[in-house]
Amino acid sequence: MYINGIGRTKFGTLTKNLPELTYEAILSAIEDSPLEITDIDTIFVSNFLGGPLNGQLHLNSIIASLLPSLNIPIVRIETACASSSVAFNQALNCLQKSPNILIVGVEKMTGIPLTSPTDAIAMAGDYKNDYDQGLIFPAAYALIAQQYMRKYGISHEVLEWVSYINHKNANMNPLAHFYHKDVTMEMIKQSPMVSSPLNLFDCSPLSDGAAAIIISNTKQSDRDIQVLSSHIATDTISITQRDDLTSFNATKIASRKVYQDAGITPDMIDLFEVHDCFTISELIALEDLGLCKPGGAAERIDDGSILIDGDHPVNTDGGLKGNGHPIGATGLAQIYEIVAQLRGEAGKRQVSDTNIGLAQNIGGIGGTCGITLMERI
Amino acid sequence: MYINGIGRTKFGTLTKNLPELTYEAILSAIEDSPLEITDIDTIFVSNFLGGPLNGQLHLNSIIASLLPSLNIPIVRIETACASSSVAFNQALNCLQKSPNILIVGVEKMTGIPLTSPTDAIAMAGDYKNDYDQGLIFPAAYALIAQQYMRKYGISHEVLEWVSYINHKNANMNPLAHFYHKDVTMEMIKQSPMVSSPLNLFDCSPLSDGAAAIIISNTKQSDRDIQVLSSHIATDTISITQRDDLTSFNATKIASRKVYQDAGITPDMIDLFEVHDCFTISELIALEDLGLCKPGGAAERIDDGSILIDGDHPVNTDGGLKGNGHPIGATGLAQIYEIVAQLRGEAGKRQVSDTNIGLAQNIGGIGGTCGITLMERI
Repeated sequence: MYINGIGRTKFGTLTKNLPELTYEAILSAIEDSPLEITDIDTIFVSNFLGGPLNGQLHLNSIIASLLPSLNIPIVRIETACASSSVAFNQALNCLQKSPNILIVGVEKMTGIPLTSPTDAIAMAGDYKNDYDQGLIFPAAYALIAQQYMRKYGISHEVLEWVSYINHKNANMNPLAHFYHKDVTMEMIKQSPMVSSPLNLFDCSPLSDGAAAIIISNTKQSDRDIQVLSSHIATDTISITQRDDLTSFNATKIASRKVYQDAGITPDMIDLFEVHDCFTISELIALEDLGLCKPGGAAERIDDGSILIDGDHPVNTDGGLKGNGHPIGATGLAQIYEIVAQLRGEAGKRQVSDTNIGLAQNIGGIGGTCGITLMERI
Repeated sequence: MYINGIGRTKFGTLTKNLPELTYEAILSAIEDSPLEITDIDTIFVSNFLGGPLNGQLHLNSIIASLLPSLNIPIVRIETACASSSVAFNQALNCLQKSPNILIVGVEKMTGIPLTSPTDAIAMAGDYKNDYDQGLIFPAAYALIAQQYMRKYGISHEVLEWVSYINHKNANMNPLAHFYHKDVTMEMIKQSPMVSSPLNLFDCSPLSDGAAAIIISNTKQSDRDIQVLSSHIATDTISITQRDDLTSFNATKIASRKVYQDAGITPDMIDLFEVHDCFTISELIALEDLGLCKPGGAAERIDDGSILIDGDHPVNTDGGLKGNGHPIGATGLAQIYEIVAQLRGEAGKRQVSDTNIGLAQNIGGIGGTCGITLMERI
């Protein structure tokens, strides 16, 4: 299982619509790959809010309209913010029958007349048990942050550093939502409260964007990156059903399966992309992935481990916070970054000596998790 | 590839919500199967309008909440009205890694406060090129009916017979939306116009309901039904991109692949479930499946071929018209009916001497098609 093409749009507040963003990402991946579009046997498309925000479902057929002469099967996957890592995982399952597959993820979240994005994003949570009680996503993650901070005795300053580091990385990523935006600790500390203890700089932005990946069951060129393992896991949707809010079981289950498949331990992984929809979820991800013990993530932030020149760089593209979070594209954008890094094509933010990278993408409040482990060959 | 469990709810205007319908169908399939729920390795869920109508996406995580101790991967597929046949097809691709898979499809369409179902269903079409010009689904299929009737010189009476026969079959199906509803030709002829030439009895209803199927890579019992082949195909979404409105290319492509896999011709198939979202689409399906030549379907209606005691019975459960059309469940309900018939468990509507059955399920205006071919073993 090899990745031979990666493509994406810039993330941010864009003028292109859903089909146009999709098309741009597909072309970008095809341009990067030795394969032609006519070599592709199957396409997967991931998108979260096309219905509620854009009035457009059935996106697989939209793609057939963009590429009308292909006549190949196209499938749409939706699993909230984990849509694209799940689509990637499903595509791997089809590689035996379809030797070359393109996966594209897309979201158009700004300039929406139909409804409030916050209400729409709440559809990733439990409508009846959580949303109806007012638990929109910033509130849910604020609850999680409160519990985490109390349990482990950490201050909000740790979260501020997560935000600061991700913005710093994003400033070296020309395609990031917040490229060329200098973010200081002062700006972070003084940003308005969203839901206590989370302020504006704890929250990832509403982004438009698309990303695409091409995989094959045989090696196509020396720039190929091997997929060592991919697993998805699903957990309960409502936080009322969780024993513990400071850890996500789906990340633990999927990552342990991936480590077992590959015969590795987390410390052997050179770089990580983790799902920092809110700063608190980056800390939880590092712990759930087994990179440190529960409550130990703050130390990793303090000692510089997660920096680009640290032992285990995290979110070198800026993460969801700095790179942006066009929901249906996010998991593929993480894979894009790992591939760019493993190839040595990450420009100013290039990590030295990287061989193995992992992407962790979650949906809802950890209701879904997709983990992808990749290696340079 | 074997089907060893089938389950469904009644279709109609129901009081249960989306998770409750899903749960009922899952239990029903497990009850029918020799497997236990703990034997299931992966679940696929198909649903079309959970976001726009029910404010609920991320349905895979909803299912984890219904079955919280399972801890297995769950994936949601959406491809408009073909969502559940595509989910079934994707599940088959995973059988090697996951030997026992449950697929459940669900839709809750009545009693909706959020938006108009007709506007929501339009999300299966092209928002920008078609819907913005007023082309909602009854209008699109009316255009198709107009072209078909002019091209082949048939009258609306043929469509009336399609409706009449489907309602007659539904009257022998206790789980159908229109069970115990005696529909006369007089009622059909006098029903109000929806979009000329289609009147109320040309249109499938808004239904609530769910259906579930359990598949395994090994035979579990003598009641198992074998899946001979399954293919999906995708076509352009907008009718502005189609050369011909009287035929759906996706049905032709997917069915020809299925025939080739199984080494059969359409006349060797004993019974058919076809996607009669509007009566006109039943005629088009019979032609696209190769059961008769283009324009020849009217003859099949006239000569009684499609009746339960005819040569090639069609929509013995009542079809979308009589059985109902809970969109995300429809493709699985078709498979449910074929399995029940091949097992000889279809009660009053049982067809005699059936060995091979085919289900054809389309999404949008034929933008997606899923074909499943099944055989008694």
